[in-house]
Amino acid sequence: MAVDFRGHPMFPQGFNSPTRFDADVYDCEVWGQIPTDIHGTFYRMQCDFDYRPPPNEWMTGFNGDGHVSRFRFANGSVDYKGRYVRTARLMAERKARRRLFGVYRNPFTDDPSVAHINRSAANTHIYWHGGKMLVLKEDSLPYTVDPHTLETQGDWNFHGKYTAQTMSAHPKIDPVTGEMIAYGYQAKGILTKDIAVYIIDPQGRVTKEWWLTSPYLGIIHDIAITQKHIIIPVIARTTSLARLKSGQPMWEWDGSLPTMVGILPRDGEAKDVRWFKGPSRNTLHFLNATDRGSTVTMELPTSSGERDPSQIRRWTFDLNSKSDGFQEDVVSTTPGFLPRMDDRHLSLDYRYAFISSRDNQGAPPAPGAGPMSGGTQVVQRLDVRTGKIDECPIAGKVALQESCFVPRANSREEGDGYVMTVVSNFDSMSSDLIITDAQHLDDGVIATVKLPFRLRSGTHTNWYPQSVLPPIKDELS
Amino acid sequence: MAVDFRGHPMFPQGFNSPTRFDADVYDCEVWGQIPTDIHGTFYRMQCDFDYRPPPNEWMTGFNGDGHVSRFRFANGSVDYKGRYVRTARLMAERKARRRLFGVYRNPFTDDPSVAHINRSAANTHIYWHGGKMLVLKEDSLPYTVDPHTLETQGDWNFHGKYTAQTMSAHPKIDPVTGEMIAYGYQAKGILTKDIAVYIIDPQGRVTKEWWLTSPYLGIIHDIAITQKHIIIPVIARTTSLARLKSGQPMWEWDGSLPTMVGILPRDGEAKDVRWFKGPSRNTLHFLNATDRGSTVTMELPTSSGERDPSQIRRWTFDLNSKSDGFQEDVVSTTPGFLPRMDDRHLSLDYRYAFISSRDNQGAPPAPGAGPMSGGTQVVQRLDVRTGKIDECPIAGKVALQESCFVPRANSREEGDGYVMTVVSNFDSMSSDLIITDAQHLDDGVIATVKLPFRLRSGTHTNWYPQSVLPPIKDELS
Repeated sequence: MAVDFRGHPMFPQGFNSPTRFDADVYDCEVWGQIPTDIHGTFYRMQCDFDYRPPPNEWMTGFNGDGHVSRFRFANGSVDYKGRYVRTARLMAERKARRRLFGVYRNPFTDDPSVAHINRSAANTHIYWHGGKMLVLKEDSLPYTVDPHTLETQGDWNFHGKYTAQTMSAHPKIDPVTGEMIAYGYQAKGILTKDIAVYIIDPQGRVTKEWWLTSPYLGIIHDIAITQKHIIIPVIARTTSLARLKSGQPMWEWDGSLPTMVGILPRDGEAKDVRWFKGPSRNTLHFLNATDRGSTVTMELPTSSGERDPSQIRRWTFDLNSKSDGFQEDVVSTTPGFLPRMDDRHLSLDYRYAFISSRDNQGAPPAPGAGPMSGGTQVVQRLDVRTGKIDECPIAGKVALQESCFVPRANSREEGDGYVMTVVSNFDSMSSDLIITDAQHLDDGVIATVKLPFRLRSGTHTNWYPQSVLPPIKDELS
Repeated sequence: MAVDFRGHPMFPQGFNSPTRFDADVYDCEVWGQIPTDIHGTFYRMQCDFDYRPPPNEWMTGFNGDGHVSRFRFANGSVDYKGRYVRTARLMAERKARRRLFGVYRNPFTDDPSVAHINRSAANTHIYWHGGKMLVLKEDSLPYTVDPHTLETQGDWNFHGKYTAQTMSAHPKIDPVTGEMIAYGYQAKGILTKDIAVYIIDPQGRVTKEWWLTSPYLGIIHDIAITQKHIIIPVIARTTSLARLKSGQPMWEWDGSLPTMVGILPRDGEAKDVRWFKGPSRNTLHFLNATDRGSTVTMELPTSSGERDPSQIRRWTFDLNSKSDGFQEDVVSTTPGFLPRMDDRHLSLDYRYAFISSRDNQGAPPAPGAGPMSGGTQVVQRLDVRTGKIDECPIAGKVALQESCFVPRANSREEGDGYVMTVVSNFDSMSSDLIITDAQHLDDGVIATVKLPFRLRSGTHTNWYPQSVLPPIKDELS
């Protein structure tokens, strides 16, 4: 009995309906000209669904099977490859040709036959570090894939030295040391309050480990780092054994819970973590943090409640204060909730965020097209010091996925380079990757990579220059 | 400089614009239920364009790169795979990342660098015979591909015994003997009038060879066979050295040329061929032929001129007559020009044709959608004895590609089985494969295999039960 997605209460039937295919496009059609100084690979994660989840599945994104898109650029050309991560979970369901895993991060809703199979859907983010392409899902250890063929290599525990059971999809790479600061929460198993934090050196070896306890069982989807600190916010989505036993997906919003922010000195011990406390905030992702004398600042997209519009705000933590409070200021009211930056300035003083956003006077989102659709879609550069926005409007009935900054080769100036953004074209039911000049967004789109099919709504993206990736052996395959 | 198809005078920008991708869909979404007695694989050829041909390319089909679609059915499920045939031609263009081959079958328009590279685009038809999956293009020898993985194996000359330079895309498999009757025209090289005909036994060995001379340099795209004869029509599209040297695609219609039909006794020699002559007819494909005492009948879709509507007609050849004429009668005015049949009755007395067609009162074709779009699209069963048509209308803004008959397992009754048809959905910009009951078309569609992308207009299709194909080793790959 084959899968039929019609009538599922959470599945759109249009652009963002499940796609469920692997594909290769050699030498993609391009409108405009790709600058020849773009030499490397843009990676993008997508959640998809090979099989139909239970009707109470929370949403059609985060519990889907992980799929990697690879746009490989050289000499003004680009080769596309899309592959599912061959997780143990996906392969078990394919073998059975039916859904075996239940709702989001709730093993009580699984088929008994998969009790001992890794639940990771490997669907959130992708990082190249220590000679491995890590594909991440915060409830599990990473999978690794070949950075060119995207062939799945298996799961990975850093030579056995990463002893936590989970690794978040948002580790941070220190651009000064090349170290990866990784962490896991529910790190001793589902519903545990344990947080494990690791330093992993540029060769992929664990060099430091901390174990912390979360103030409450909240979501810890992302962290931020400075040169001196690791900032660990716990956010007001919570869960419980009773909730899981009742068959619900893991999280529910609880606006009565505070925002708790742990600040851990990178040269300290676990006991040195300091927890700040603020009102509940709805957020998942953080832009960047910076040491400023005895304070730490962090910029992030957030809203004050589950249904409020997102803004870019700044949190300031005074490490000399005896209060456990922190200050909050609005940097910009732009509603884009997946801001990125020039990652060469991560943890450092910086100026620019790059944001897929939309104007605030827009039409309502298209059916099933997600919260960022509607209105005029814009690629933005936000100056986080001044709030000034430069932008490139994208014409048509479109929605933008997460933008990614691509540094210009041989330039070290912050923000000198390009922005790559995957665009959903609702009229042609196909996806584009557009390239804009990060310093001249008002010049418009430089080049558009035309895919002959649609990519459903994606999660996160990363860019790696070919100089840091292994040699290419599969060009004509 | 990447390819950009915009502005080419012959390329549609919508559904039938180039697709240029390989893809896999494991366990396709299905609406309805696939009968579990369908166990085998439906193959379909598509012409596509990796690179942009010269502006005077004749049309956007026949000179494109060959692409195989594989729909593999078992236990009510279907796995899809689509792969380009890795021809020498395609790989040379991919390596150069630009178009090297010129217009349709005209080597004078090629880049000099490819003078010694096989011109076959392997884009027309696909046959399983003698343990090989043959992918055919009439200007060259076959390529072979793995029937399950679709991996290209190379070109094939039947152990060196097929000495002609070309093999047509329309060989015929004798259902009684299992022999393949294959032929090539322009068989001693481009613009030659030589026709070579071969008998190839079920093990893939050449057992008989004839060499004939065509009455003129016309197209010989298809043949028909009976148990006693091979019927070889030469059709009024012609070419010349002057035409090729002027840079034009090979063929031009010339209504002043006759239709010449060679009838070659299967137990005779080349000198025994008899040429019949009739007025010019516009046709490429033949439905079937049958010995009836001293006459031979052949049914085919044809029109009387290049712009006349196609009909199903019957040609009758009296082998006892001293005249070189033949009789023509109309069987049906249905306009479908790619009729298929229950191939177990090929060369024998038979009753049914299966045709993707449309009603005659339909709206005009959608832009770029081809001559069979517009009006109500219908899957038809035509009784060639009576002219009676049963049909299944297909709702929506759609176009049907070639239908293929799929015999019911364990039934030997003519026409007992299913019809499979690939459907272009212009609204959703995606393709379906629909299954209808060949004996009960008015019951409507039994099952619809939903692809998450579009397949541009295809050429020919074939069905092979798993019982004749090699064991499957790649199910979960």
